[in-house]
Amino acid sequence: MTDVAPGRRGPGRPAGAGDTRQVILDAARAEFAAKGYDAASVRAIARAAGVDPALVHHYFGPKEKVFVAAMDLPIAPGDALPDVLAGGVEGLGERLVRLFLSLWSDPAFRGPMLGMLRSASTGEQGAAMLREFVSGAMLGRVGAVLEGPDAALRVNLAAAQMVGVVLLRFVVGVEPLASATDEEVVALVAPTLQRYLDGGS
Amino acid sequence: MTDVAPGRRGPGRPAGAGDTRQVILDAARAEFAAKGYDAASVRAIARAAGVDPALVHHYFGPKEKVFVAAMDLPIAPGDALPDVLAGGVEGLGERLVRLFLSLWSDPAFRGPMLGMLRSASTGEQGAAMLREFVSGAMLGRVGAVLEGPDAALRVNLAAAQMVGVVLLRFVVGVEPLASATDEEVVALVAPTLQRYLDGGS
Repeated sequence: MTDVAPGRRGPGRPAGAGDTRQVILDAARAEFAAKGYDAASVRAIARAAGVDPALVHHYFGPKEKVFVAAMDLPIAPGDALPDVLAGGVEGLGERLVRLFLSLWSDPAFRGPMLGMLRSASTGEQGAAMLREFVSGAMLGRVGAVLEGPDAALRVNLAAAQMVGVVLLRFVVGVEPLASATDEEVVALVAPTLQRYLDGGS
Repeated sequence: MTDVAPGRRGPGRPAGAGDTRQVILDAARAEFAAKGYDAASVRAIARAAGVDPALVHHYFGPKEKVFVAAMDLPIAPGDALPDVLAGGVEGLGERLVRLFLSLWSDPAFRGPMLGMLRSASTGEQGAAMLREFVSGAMLGRVGAVLEGPDAALRVNLAAAQMVGVVLLRFVVGVEPLASATDEEVVALVAPTLQRYLDGGS
């Protein structure tokens, strides 16, 4: 595979595939940080890395996957959501709670997500990036299966419930939430999410 | 910690009141950071500051108020809660949502609280301090007016809902939650809190 990044290298310094991959990720981080998730483009990332956009796609896939790789996220949220959403609105609250709890109970997921949250709380740039990614890649997909004029707001509030649960349970460690079983949490939180998804109060 | 505690001064170097106040606050910050909220004591803070415990109480009041002053929090949560709790469980969900929204919409409150959240997300020590303070000074008081074996867990989940709402609305800025009116948020969130306070699902 000829994946040299000629724009940045002197002659006689060919890059290996691992090297190119890293150059693209560095360029992607800089692009997302500078423009936010929405305005960033695979084309601009490729240009900064000195490679063809097709090569970026070959390594990482579409923009969402480039973001996930650049931010070192352990999974693309879009990978798990389709299964959860496929069952329709009925029981969706419980499936979402279980998905969140299982993801966040894994330190390999929690670490990078906390890094993102931290950068979001320290600067507007990080907040914008997280906001756009969460809105576009996650909430938008859930909202798309709901009905009603306030569907988007209700999805926000369901997300707020889960964000708060993972923060207090896994980060701050508030008791008894931190030590409660998944089943105890699901029993109380799933109906809350379901009511938001079904149409609110 | 500075080393200007009065106890360690030479005889001809009396401290002014402002100076002593600052010495106590520095000692308090060090004590809370070293031991967490629960294990920290006014006595140990006074000893580190080289003053009598009665002087700490004279300047700041009980430990909760010393903490609020040391962390530069704009209000003591305990100051607002009694009014909100005085009305009993009926309508408490709505009163709590309105209290949270009005506090967090004030940048003078939001700034210091975000600083605390940030330090909680960057280290176990900060997390422990926040956890103990939130549990003791806030959740404990709400839980005390509720009944049922899972009252404490339900209060945690109500708090999780509000923590998530303020994070997504005021920090991350997720739309449409960030631009929704208080009334729109109250209409959807108050019933959620009320159900947790009334006994869950």
